Amino acid sequence: MKERAYDPERHAARMAAKQKIMQERIARAQNEKGILLVLTGAGKGKSSSGFGMVARALGHGMKVGIVQFIKGSFTTGEHTFFKDLPNVDYHVMGEGYTWDTQDRERDVQTAEAAWEIASKMLKDPSYDMVLLDELNIALRYDYLNLDRVMDDLHNRPEMQHVTVTGRYAPDVLIELADTVTEMKPLKHAFKDQGVKAQKGVEL
Amino acid sequence: MKERAYDPERHAARMAAKQKIMQERIARAQNEKGILLVLTGAGKGKSSSGFGMVARALGHGMKVGIVQFIKGSFTTGEHTFFKDLPNVDYHVMGEGYTWDTQDRERDVQTAEAAWEIASKMLKDPSYDMVLLDELNIALRYDYLNLDRVMDDLHNRPEMQHVTVTGRYAPDVLIELADTVTEMKPLKHAFKDQGVKAQKGVEL
Repeated sequence: MKERAYDPERHAARMAAKQKIMQERIARAQNEKGILLVLTGAGKGKSSSGFGMVARALGHGMKVGIVQFIKGSFTTGEHTFFKDLPNVDYHVMGEGYTWDTQDRERDVQTAEAAWEIASKMLKDPSYDMVLLDELNIALRYDYLNLDRVMDDLHNRPEMQHVTVTGRYAPDVLIELADTVTEMKPLKHAFKDQGVKAQKGVEL
Repeated sequence: MKERAYDPERHAARMAAKQKIMQERIARAQNEKGILLVLTGAGKGKSSSGFGMVARALGHGMKVGIVQFIKGSFTTGEHTFFKDLPNVDYHVMGEGYTWDTQDRERDVQTAEAAWEIASKMLKDPSYDMVLLDELNIALRYDYLNLDRVMDDLHNRPEMQHVTVTGRYAPDVLIELADTVTEMKPLKHAFKDQGVKAQKGVEL
């Protein structure tokens, strides 16, 4: 049997100590600035997390730019959902996964056209948040000039939040980022168990 | 200098081979079923990923139930954004972080009331997706009976997707889940660098 004896005083004291730590941390953290957030790793949840932050930002009345670098060969649920909302500027640039196009020159052109749009957003302080979905994949395949991408990210408006998703985030991007999460797959229904990609979850 | 010599034929052949693997994987994965997705770990992006999947599901015209077990002492952006949308049934039950309440009895009552609502959703096939945000924290503190939670998840409608977020997912939940992602923090602006929690990203 698991021991669950409960001492209310001890609990209150422990929670009070924890509250103090959190309050001190909040007091110390008074810098206001735009966050560069990188979501990488092989686990499920990178793009959906980026879109969840878009929803959160829209809830605060912010203006959001979205550029999808790789997906786009099918209509995804998030595109249907977000594309016509006010305060959303949504561009699907990728022509599908690279193993579907089999044409590197076209992939490079598509990625460069996508970066033209992203680059304008990163120079425009009216965008409070920019989501660069699957940018890491475009970098991984050398479809884009890494130095140019890094310069544009680094020189963006001070209060602008940027979320970059995709496996294989390059080291220089991780270095520049404020917050980085690596998503590790512990289990994956589609790969491990032969479960079809499900609407609303995968698509 | 990095070697970038590019052979279009070799690239096309490599991509064709990858396409074949993906097509075989898709052909094999024909099971239709509701996915139980668990997003855990200490990294940023668990809840936002859950809300991104809500957006995706809504884009497919699905009906979504949301129960937030811990957050709720402040109005979060996602609550403002989603609460009044059609097809969304949104309940914020938590009274804030447990170190703010310092009252275990009240936390237990709050969690149990939240589970009553979640449990009804998990018995109602009209909900295509249910997001149980920060449920893992309520389980971690033993605010809920784990067996009851596991039974309700296990016995839910066959096609219903469920996303459970929060650190410290219990082993039995990971065992039951179809897809599990552990979010590992590589960097965190708020903790590491004294950057204030930013609207649209953290809140």
